[in-house]
Amino acid sequence: MSSFEELGFCKLDTDREQRTGFPEVVFGAGKTKEQIAVIVTRLIEKHGRVMVTRLAPNIADELMLLFPEAVYQSIPRIFTYGTAKRLFIGKVTVLSGGTSDMPVAEEAAITAEWMGCKVERIYDVGVAGIDRLLAFRENIQSANVVIVVAGMEGALASVVGGLVRRPVIAVPTSVGYGCHFEGLTPLLSMMTSCAAGISVVNIDNGFGAGYNAAIIQQLVAEASQS
Amino acid sequence: MSSFEELGFCKLDTDREQRTGFPEVVFGAGKTKEQIAVIVTRLIEKHGRVMVTRLAPNIADELMLLFPEAVYQSIPRIFTYGTAKRLFIGKVTVLSGGTSDMPVAEEAAITAEWMGCKVERIYDVGVAGIDRLLAFRENIQSANVVIVVAGMEGALASVVGGLVRRPVIAVPTSVGYGCHFEGLTPLLSMMTSCAAGISVVNIDNGFGAGYNAAIIQQLVAEASQS
Amino acid sequence: MSSFEELGFCKLDTDREQRTGFPEVVFGAGKTKEQIAVIVTRLIEKHGRVMVTRLAPNIADELMLLFPEAVYQSIPRIFTYGTAKRLFIGKVTVLSGGTSDMPVAEEAAITAEWMGCKVERIYDVGVAGIDRLLAFRENIQSANVVIVVAGMEGALASVVGGLVRRPVIAVPTSVGYGCHFEGLTPLLSMMTSCAAGISVVNIDNGFGAGYNAAIIQQLVAEASQS
Amino acid sequence: MSSFEELGFCKLDTDREQRTGFPEVVFGAGKTKEQIAVIVTRLIEKHGRVMVTRLAPNIADELMLLFPEAVYQSIPRIFTYGTAKRLFIGKVTVLSGGTSDMPVAEEAAITAEWMGCKVERIYDVGVAGIDRLLAFRENIQSANVVIVVAGMEGALASVVGGLVRRPVIAVPTSVGYGCHFEGLTPLLSMMTSCAAGISVVNIDNGFGAGYNAAIIQQLVAEASQS
Amino acid sequence: MSSFEELGFCKLDTDREQRTGFPEVVFGAGKTKEQIAVIVTRLIEKHGRVMVTRLAPNIADELMLLFPEAVYQSIPRIFTYGTAKRLFIGKVTVLSGGTSDMPVAEEAAITAEWMGCKVERIYDVGVAGIDRLLAFRENIQSANVVIVVAGMEGALASVVGGLVRRPVIAVPTSVGYGCHFEGLTPLLSMMTSCAAGISVVNIDNGFGAGYNAAIIQQLVAEASQS
Amino acid sequence: MSSFEELGFCKLDTDREQRTGFPEVVFGAGKTKEQIAVIVTRLIEKHGRVMVTRLAPNIADELMLLFPEAVYQSIPRIFTYGTAKRLFIGKVTVLSGGTSDMPVAEEAAITAEWMGCKVERIYDVGVAGIDRLLAFRENIQSANVVIVVAGMEGALASVVGGLVRRPVIAVPTSVGYGCHFEGLTPLLSMMTSCAAGISVVNIDNGFGAGYNAAIIQQLVAEASQS
Amino acid sequence: MSSFEELGFCKLDTDREQRTGFPEVVFGAGKTKEQIAVIVTRLIEKHGRVMVTRLAPNIADELMLLFPEAVYQSIPRIFTYGTAKRLFIGKVTVLSGGTSDMPVAEEAAITAEWMGCKVERIYDVGVAGIDRLLAFRENIQSANVVIVVAGMEGALASVVGGLVRRPVIAVPTSVGYGCHFEGLTPLLSMMTSCAAGISVVNIDNGFGAGYNAAIIQQLVAEASQS
Amino acid sequence: MSSFEELGFCKLDTDREQRTGFPEVVFGAGKTKEQIAVIVTRLIEKHGRVMVTRLAPNIADELMLLFPEAVYQSIPRIFTYGTAKRLFIGKVTVLSGGTSDMPVAEEAAITAEWMGCKVERIYDVGVAGIDRLLAFRENIQSANVVIVVAGMEGALASVVGGLVRRPVIAVPTSVGYGCHFEGLTPLLSMMTSCAAGISVVNIDNGFGAGYNAAIIQQLVAEASQS
Repeated sequence: MSSFEELGFCKLDTDREQRTGFPEVVFGAGKTKEQIAVIVTRLIEKHGRVMVTRLAPNIADELMLLFPEAVYQSIPRIFTYGTAKRLFIGKVTVLSGGTSDMPVAEEAAITAEWMGCKVERIYDVGVAGIDRLLAFRENIQSANVVIVVAGMEGALASVVGGLVRRPVIAVPTSVGYGCHFEGLTPLLSMMTSCAAGISVVNIDNGFGAGYNAAIIQQLVAEASQS
Repeated sequence: MSSFEELGFCKLDTDREQRTGFPEVVFGAGKTKEQIAVIVTRLIEKHGRVMVTRLAPNIADELMLLFPEAVYQSIPRIFTYGTAKRLFIGKVTVLSGGTSDMPVAEEAAITAEWMGCKVERIYDVGVAGIDRLLAFRENIQSANVVIVVAGMEGALASVVGGLVRRPVIAVPTSVGYGCHFEGLTPLLSMMTSCAAGISVVNIDNGFGAGYNAAIIQQLVAEASQS
Repeated sequence: MSSFEELGFCKLDTDREQRTGFPEVVFGAGKTKEQIAVIVTRLIEKHGRVMVTRLAPNIADELMLLFPEAVYQSIPRIFTYGTAKRLFIGKVTVLSGGTSDMPVAEEAAITAEWMGCKVERIYDVGVAGIDRLLAFRENIQSANVVIVVAGMEGALASVVGGLVRRPVIAVPTSVGYGCHFEGLTPLLSMMTSCAAGISVVNIDNGFGAGYNAAIIQQLVAEASQS
Repeated sequence: MSSFEELGFCKLDTDREQRTGFPEVVFGAGKTKEQIAVIVTRLIEKHGRVMVTRLAPNIADELMLLFPEAVYQSIPRIFTYGTAKRLFIGKVTVLSGGTSDMPVAEEAAITAEWMGCKVERIYDVGVAGIDRLLAFRENIQSANVVIVVAGMEGALASVVGGLVRRPVIAVPTSVGYGCHFEGLTPLLSMMTSCAAGISVVNIDNGFGAGYNAAIIQQLVAEASQS
Repeated sequence: MSSFEELGFCKLDTDREQRTGFPEVVFGAGKTKEQIAVIVTRLIEKHGRVMVTRLAPNIADELMLLFPEAVYQSIPRIFTYGTAKRLFIGKVTVLSGGTSDMPVAEEAAITAEWMGCKVERIYDVGVAGIDRLLAFRENIQSANVVIVVAGMEGALASVVGGLVRRPVIAVPTSVGYGCHFEGLTPLLSMMTSCAAGISVVNIDNGFGAGYNAAIIQQLVAEASQS
Repeated sequence: MSSFEELGFCKLDTDREQRTGFPEVVFGAGKTKEQIAVIVTRLIEKHGRVMVTRLAPNIADELMLLFPEAVYQSIPRIFTYGTAKRLFIGKVTVLSGGTSDMPVAEEAAITAEWMGCKVERIYDVGVAGIDRLLAFRENIQSANVVIVVAGMEGALASVVGGLVRRPVIAVPTSVGYGCHFEGLTPLLSMMTSCAAGISVVNIDNGFGAGYNAAIIQQLVAEASQS
Repeated sequence: MSSFEELGFCKLDTDREQRTGFPEVVFGAGKTKEQIAVIVTRLIEKHGRVMVTRLAPNIADELMLLFPEAVYQSIPRIFTYGTAKRLFIGKVTVLSGGTSDMPVAEEAAITAEWMGCKVERIYDVGVAGIDRLLAFRENIQSANVVIVVAGMEGALASVVGGLVRRPVIAVPTSVGYGCHFEGLTPLLSMMTSCAAGISVVNIDNGFGAGYNAAIIQQLVAEASQS
Repeated sequence: MSSFEELGFCKLDTDREQRTGFPEVVFGAGKTKEQIAVIVTRLIEKHGRVMVTRLAPNIADELMLLFPEAVYQSIPRIFTYGTAKRLFIGKVTVLSGGTSDMPVAEEAAITAEWMGCKVERIYDVGVAGIDRLLAFRENIQSANVVIVVAGMEGALASVVGGLVRRPVIAVPTSVGYGCHFEGLTPLLSMMTSCAAGISVVNIDNGFGAGYNAAIIQQLVAEASQS
């Protein structure tokens, strides 16, 4: 049985690092400035580090006053304090289809880094110019885990899935228009991909992809040591 | 003002060849054996040739007794009588993603051929094995029109759209399962493709793709002659 | 193998004119002012011309300071610099259903013009007043390619598809309300049209329609010369 | 307060003729042979006439043994016994888009006739051959009520709606394939029509359209007499 | 063949009054201030009256300066100039489910009135308090046409449809929340109603309902005179 | 912590009666004949009674050979063995909209009875004949819990919800056609009902409604005794 | 037959307290300041108490000037005046999945309290930390009615449904992103729950859940007294 | 560049074992008996082993005559010939929600086994009886990869995701009814899970889950050796 700490408005999962290897990550959207400040303070006290995703810039500004040594990256809207305790072997490669997918790709990359992964970024390699992608074939094939971030029709996941022997985590993004339906189309497309080895996370869920990559890397690290 | 012939249950568009260059093509699904026999007979009398798509084998068998010189192809379920009056310059290339897309691909190919196109078939080149596709890069780039037939996630259209300078007509197929939704997923995917130069027809509408390719080829032919 | 230029935030497809006949067109939505300025500058250096679609007026204003000889059209929100190298034979006719479809229709028309097409515009000819449309029957029938831009139920595509012997490219628009679902209804309607010879592009994708028309015209031009 | 008759498995609305001008019509689908026999017998006793829609042929066969003077029409699957008490002035015109829409069109036509309407049928006038439709312009414009039955994209309703000064009742049908979604596409299309004067009933609901037309004709008849 | 007047940005259907009995009604949404001013001026010159629906208040203010004798009603956002040429016999009754449905109900009522109908309004009679509705049973049953305007689940249409012998035109509204989906739920609900005699128009399309009611009333009037 | 019994293919929740007051009910669909026989035998051994819903007739026939004293009702496809240990005070009233909703209504009624409720059935009282329903107003108002089973548009739930002071459990059914979407329309309609006091269970889930009613009645019984 | 009071813009259901035990509750969204003021004043005159849900803060401010003894809670946006006439035996337990679900959970809790329930709140016990939830197992099992408020995937309802012998009322919330579709996903998830004893209300409909819980508690109270 | 073998109807990816570590797996659905026989024969010649998923029993029977040493498992409909070349360290645990999910769970388990994984099966541990699941907490926490197979609402994935530090691959199944929509509901539910560390594959795609688990295990094995 794991334990938690009652904060009134929430029940902090203080046991999570012991249970999963990582302290609880805070989802910043939909929480008030005060709620976030309390949670962040408590997590830093407990674990010495914290990450907040989807944090509005104005809340981040106030948080930075409290924790000047923290870092806030405005494109992916991530706040981080402290770093990973260890660096996993091998690399995670994050690919993105287009320039506008960068916030989600960065959310994935920074999450994985904060959790201890070495991350390689290869952006703007959408399949409409297949040679751009293939120019990085070896980079991609030498990764332990590949994260594919793509909006529009999400075809990049299928092409990459066919190139590698490693797990591919696909993230559909809400970048597109018309019958793209704010990411539903690439989500369905990635789900029905003709390539094996692909699994999918929610639309714009860069955090989830980075987290999945990191726990695979953690598994590799722990298995290698045993 | 064009004219038509009243057959009781339908109004035959006998004027269509003069108007569009091709006699009316019969959509076989949902019509009775007798209706089809009357229509086919009348169109042969009028134009000397006819094509029926989506024709059930048992109706085809009876029709073949009436018109022994006709041809019925059971995979795409197409009945043809007579041939094109002329052969257009250049080629139409039909690509398909997987083995199971063949009925739709053949519907496209046979339609285009019956209308006067030279057709090149390159099947089973889905993007999960991108090198299979790229092995045919030159074939594809030398076509006047490219038809891409794909089920699953339909990513083939995007990759091909990025390779060529010619119009790509994409046909989503109902081949797939789960959240493929009988072709809705590749339809949406092809619609939101990151590649320009792609236009899309209805799910499994191989006929429509072949027809579109043929009228482009007809335009090329007529423009070249003038 | 085609090549590209690494700009950090994107990989510019500088090889595209050689591959497809046209330089890369920039999709302005979702890119920052700075990103657009860099891309536009580089493409002008390379090709002597550029087109940016869906460009916000405030970014356009700044871009015009850099390139005073460029043109920005505020209704379709298109920025163009330079003109086509050649003018294709024959015309492209752009039809629209209603007054409110004009931005999309103009995006199609200007794209086709910038790529070298002669364009005829026939606007506000929705099928609820069929005689308005039929008054232009000859104009429509004498086009090489017809683009139909329509919101609401999109029925215009079907009627036009039945009138002509040439390819019809249908563009559903987000103009409508209620169960029009921001363009999904005309998209589905155009897809299931009872007329042959129609293919469809994404909702509000006037650029895609214009591009498709232009590459058909390019095909005609190149085939005529050979 | 109206009254009803308790039959155990159902509560027969015997008061309906007095309330609405017409006896209750039986929806045959989903009821057992025995249930239908009891209801039909009771309604004939009460009103001297009855109509059953969507009646399976095998149940119809048995019913015909009980009521030899009844009529069963197998295409629209309608069973009728007795006729209207009066014939309304003016005509109802039923249009259909294609041959396969005939069962629904006939359900509409027979319902209207059984309720007292004079019905004119104009079938297979889909908009892909607009001149076929316009050849009947005067017939359509001289109707009191127009019923438009169409599958595929349902564009016929919009064109007809623009031609007449009378109410148009549109019936989408399940005839189509792919993203037609068993009638959802023409339903949405008819709903968002750019023509005024159109109202819509459920997919394949020929009965509803015929019923609506008949109560309009009843209103006209009663108002004329008063 | 009807005629039209070319205004540049639109083709005015000046022939409509002769064809349908009513001059063209202007859909105000999505048109600029200038476009509306030109159209309204021209229609007043031609017909002596005009109606504009969905007109933004700021545009209405300017229009009122041009035509001080016009009327603008801000809840349904309708601008009217001039009145009907004749008053039809009998009444149209407009019912609404709740207070928030009033803008749509008023759009229906004012449209019908402007076209010549006598209109009775019975608002806030949703079925959750069935006795409120039944208190008006006789009012409803004595109408020639009943318009039912309802959001939420739209059940009012079914109950009313069972009470009357006259046509019921149902208008789903976008009033609701959650899985009401901005009116889709009442639209589908009204479509599948267990009551006969109901037909449906688009979400929030009060104009369409009023127009339908008025052309039924016009039919009654013309038939009575003949 | 509750316990369970491992049967290999399933883990029987033998602790459920103690935890909830009722033994586990078996969902018969999707299980093999052999699996059902083993589960039923074991539950009878343990609790002396069992209920199986959605049981195919052929499996029921074999089960009846094993347990001749059991009862199988073929319309709702329910198998019951044994009876409730006690009879709760007050009644549960089950209403249905139409004759075809009876299988689901009976599933609800028999479930509630087997669990100890007194059940009153009032069937075929759809709102299109509101007086049929209102004739039972007092019956409905004197129930402790009301279950409303309705297909088509599901409006019955709203009307009943407005009549009573007790909980209304609404069950949408798959009875309908066209845009009824196999029960999705009444589900959404019931969800967005304008009446308070309604909660909804899954399409055709008569069992769930009966179960909910019974646990409310159990609560009443236990609270009364305490 | 119940009665109502005509207020012009609405028909106040003054008879509701007698019919259901509770005065009418006002849905604040979509009504004007003036309408709310009139309704609230009239209900207080009639019943001595009133509750308004979804009331905008600026309207609440003005209302508080009129009724200083009232209470407005800004998180759930509820205005209450007066209290319940009696306190029901037993408790209602309100669970929520996450911090952001609190407004909806509070709407449920306050509604139940205002109607006479004792309410226990257990918030932030989403299933991703199952031990947090299980730490409250006894609290939950001792409730008469359990309300589960959850966004994201709504899994909390299923787990709770399996723990208790009492009715569970599930409220999906619009808290989530991506393919959560503003609450549709948890709604569907709760509907198809593998646990019995769950019924569902509309997305974010905390009021409906609280109301349902209260009428169950009222039933228990009245049954206990009889 | 990888190579392939042209079989006429398909292009066999013979290079895949070298590229990914595993020979191509054959998707049996939608292929003819003859096509499967040719592919299987060729893959056995090349790699000494093969797996065919979704293979119809009648085709399997004929295949077994050709390859008597092969194994066909009829519940998951999988044909396997040969075994893995090596056994990966650690275990993959496959959980299923209910008895009816077993075919998909077995497809996942057998795929993983055939690829070299040690697999632990824990079936029928749906969350409606949370203690059944928690009884296996340690088993689940000691797995390298967890596969969760669940129909209905798919809540099992969220609970498991919160228990473990390892990757969870979730497979929604088509087991359910009503608004379960053949697996769409659990798919969306798993996608929007409140637990991190979950990624999702297509509905019923047991193969995909097993494949993903195996390539993670392969990564662990290869990293451990290096």
